[in-house]
Amino acid sequence: MSSGYSVAIVGVTGAVGTELLQCLERRDFPVSSIRLLASRRSVGTSVRFRGVDQAVEELTEQSLKGVEFAFFAVDNETARTFVPVAVRHGAVVIDNSSAYRLSPDIPLIVPEINPDAVRRHKGLIANPNCCAIIAITPLWTIHKKYKIRRLIISTYQAASGAGAPAMNELRESTKAFLAGEAYTPKVLPHPYAFNVFNHDSAVDLESGYNGEELKIVSETRKIFSDPNIAISATCVRVPVLRAHAESLTFECDTPVSPADVRGLLHNAPGVKVVDDRQKNYFPMPVDASNQDKILVGRIRQDTSDPSGRSISMFVAGDQLLKGAALNAVQIAELLCSQQAPAASLATQYASR
Amino acid sequence: MSSGYSVAIVGVTGAVGTELLQCLERRDFPVSSIRLLASRRSVGTSVRFRGVDQAVEELTEQSLKGVEFAFFAVDNETARTFVPVAVRHGAVVIDNSSAYRLSPDIPLIVPEINPDAVRRHKGLIANPNCCAIIAITPLWTIHKKYKIRRLIISTYQAASGAGAPAMNELRESTKAFLAGEAYTPKVLPHPYAFNVFNHDSAVDLESGYNGEELKIVSETRKIFSDPNIAISATCVRVPVLRAHAESLTFECDTPVSPADVRGLLHNAPGVKVVDDRQKNYFPMPVDASNQDKILVGRIRQDTSDPSGRSISMFVAGDQLLKGAALNAVQIAELLCSQQAPAASLATQYASR
Repeated sequence: MSSGYSVAIVGVTGAVGTELLQCLERRDFPVSSIRLLASRRSVGTSVRFRGVDQAVEELTEQSLKGVEFAFFAVDNETARTFVPVAVRHGAVVIDNSSAYRLSPDIPLIVPEINPDAVRRHKGLIANPNCCAIIAITPLWTIHKKYKIRRLIISTYQAASGAGAPAMNELRESTKAFLAGEAYTPKVLPHPYAFNVFNHDSAVDLESGYNGEELKIVSETRKIFSDPNIAISATCVRVPVLRAHAESLTFECDTPVSPADVRGLLHNAPGVKVVDDRQKNYFPMPVDASNQDKILVGRIRQDTSDPSGRSISMFVAGDQLLKGAALNAVQIAELLCSQQAPAASLATQYASR
Repeated sequence: MSSGYSVAIVGVTGAVGTELLQCLERRDFPVSSIRLLASRRSVGTSVRFRGVDQAVEELTEQSLKGVEFAFFAVDNETARTFVPVAVRHGAVVIDNSSAYRLSPDIPLIVPEINPDAVRRHKGLIANPNCCAIIAITPLWTIHKKYKIRRLIISTYQAASGAGAPAMNELRESTKAFLAGEAYTPKVLPHPYAFNVFNHDSAVDLESGYNGEELKIVSETRKIFSDPNIAISATCVRVPVLRAHAESLTFECDTPVSPADVRGLLHNAPGVKVVDDRQKNYFPMPVDASNQDKILVGRIRQDTSDPSGRSISMFVAGDQLLKGAALNAVQIAELLCSQQAPAASLATQYASR
């Protein structure tokens, strides 16, 4: 048996599941065996891993036995049912759903920001919201030095965040529009072809914020370990396939210049500065797609704050990679690099 | 000869020119005769007005003689050449270019905001930037009561702002993308299919702001007659055909609630509140297209400002209508409703 871990991907046929498999492969994650799990309707299909077609199996309680690392890329309800089973069976779970992210005893990790939180895990680590990851991976280095106290975000979110069916709906509805044909949305609540609309998560009737916006606020506070950072977000779907962009304006405790910020970002992990004013070349979803790094540019003094403490910038990141699958695999790599190997960490907590 | 004015549309074959003609027709603007002007390469084509096909004539100095109202929808260079000619010939010009907007003695007008400025015209009135109009038509009523002192804007701008060729490029490049074919952008600097990118106006190398962003700041200050309002904008093109959307966050002098703002907006001219949290139904470009009114929704307390003085909201407006042609025709209607008729106002200043 080859050295490495017994790995399961739960939700392997989805948009994030597909990327998880590819991330494990191209990053040479130490996999000794892999189990590819999905709902019953995917049974009979196969997916390719390291050049070999492997059958997709049905996700059941039994299917999670003997797994050391389980990557979950399923909806909250399925996660709530099967994550505890996997943990009970001794796996370390990295869960992409939002079901457990805000539980105080479950680490929520962006490896570039709070890697040490991995040590506190009890068999389950939560992978943050994609928009939160894409905004805060570059912001962290600035927050550490200048303390961001206020953050205003407007997003330009791709279809991929709503899964492969939404990506397909964007393609199909656009084709229909261009052909002058009618199209009734099936996956998303509004026409997507050449349109933008409020994020499709439920809107809180009291505050008016949608679920995605509320996640960004609470998850950023948890990952930054800063309950006081004041944040508001406006989350919007745009007709883009797989990379999110975000317009960020933030206010620091002290004056900060674009040059200060640019200098910090040039040395920040997981970030690439794309900021060419002469050529009008800045972060774009087409460039961020299939890229591990978050692109950051349009770094400039926010002219709405005469105190010189505010900066505006624009970021783009692959929602399926750093926004989901890549971050999850990085968390697993972090576990592998810890002194105590993942499996024994898991075993340590499995009986709880 | 029928009663009304002798009207010219300069740039009648462009995206805004086409809408100007339709606005004049559907709003029953008192037109006694119409002259349809464009560059030489459009000569030989015709456009329909009030059911009659009319020949497009070449824009020359001569062609502007005997015109009472001239609507200009051309680039800055053409405007700089021909607007003074039209004014010299006695026309009142309403110019959609940005060439004259910031000249201190030229009124820059949104009829819902500063109609009285029309009285100061000397033959030329400037029509504001589309994004500025769409943001500030709803903001004005709030500014009057609560005094907005800080405004942060992120835009979701349609292809139409770059003219009919850009709209065509969006359609054609998207078709090519869906067919798996290559497409080289000809009109805009970046791939447009399923992509978003920084606005295509030149970026100021010193500040990092693009031309569109700088226009929003300076034009809003002029129209509001408030040189102190602190504004920053991030202007972004999204793959939408003809209506712009904008995410607005503003800070007032005193605390203000979403209910206060909603109440004001319900009675604001030129504005329609679309703010259904239950149904997740808010302003969208598809709904704003071919609509005279600016749609406003997602009105909520900005959670990044604990003082309760800030509000976030989302607007969408037809860039070609209220953002350009409709606003220009409204300015002309304003002139007609003044005691002194437009033609005599123009004559009064024509000799200057």
